[in-house]
Amino acid sequence: MIPVLTTEDRAAALAALPQWTYDPVRDSIVREFRCADFVTAFGFMTSVALAAEKVDHHPEWSNVYNRVTIVLTTHDAGDNGGLSGRDIALAKTIDALFGD
Amino acid sequence: MIPVLTTEDRAAALAALPQWTYDPVRDSIVREFRCADFVTAFGFMTSVALAAEKVDHHPEWSNVYNRVTIVLTTHDAGDNGGLSGRDIALAKTIDALFGD
Repeated sequence: MIPVLTTEDRAAALAALPQWTYDPVRDSIVREFRCADFVTAFGFMTSVALAAEKVDHHPEWSNVYNRVTIVLTTHDAGDNGGLSGRDIALAKTIDALFGD
Repeated sequence: MIPVLTTEDRAAALAALPQWTYDPVRDSIVREFRCADFVTAFGFMTSVALAAEKVDHHPEWSNVYNRVTIVLTTHDAGDNGGLSGRDIALAKTIDALFGD
């Protein structure tokens, strides 16, 4: 089983991901990305999809025209799912793909 | 301005789209698609994205692993947005792309 982050590790990880918001209800992180238009947004999503498949860790995400909202949590972490190191790693990859 | 469907036209259109559910609150239609896995789901999304861009009418959609939920409504229809013929046409295209 994949371990969920400890409170201390989570705080340290989130400090390095200032654009992501922690959701304590789902023990997940979320970020909304705004792109120029639909083509740019879906191009970004495609790059994230390839990166996610590569590490076999997939986002929960939605898209409305130029907006992409990404939620990261690990379904098979701990007893009930929660934030793990895999989410932190994927968030960093996503930020890099977005061009932060 | 794009006209919203009349009640009669909407009923006729929805009869031809049995897998879509009408949401009266948003005057939209929604369908959930289940694919084999993430790769299949994102491949399906890619085909829908290309079709949507081609007709310049875009879905509100979300994806969690093998599930894709698509909401169709026309933001610039009528006074407050609503279901138009463009949504019906895109729904038929999406069904065909899914392989119904």
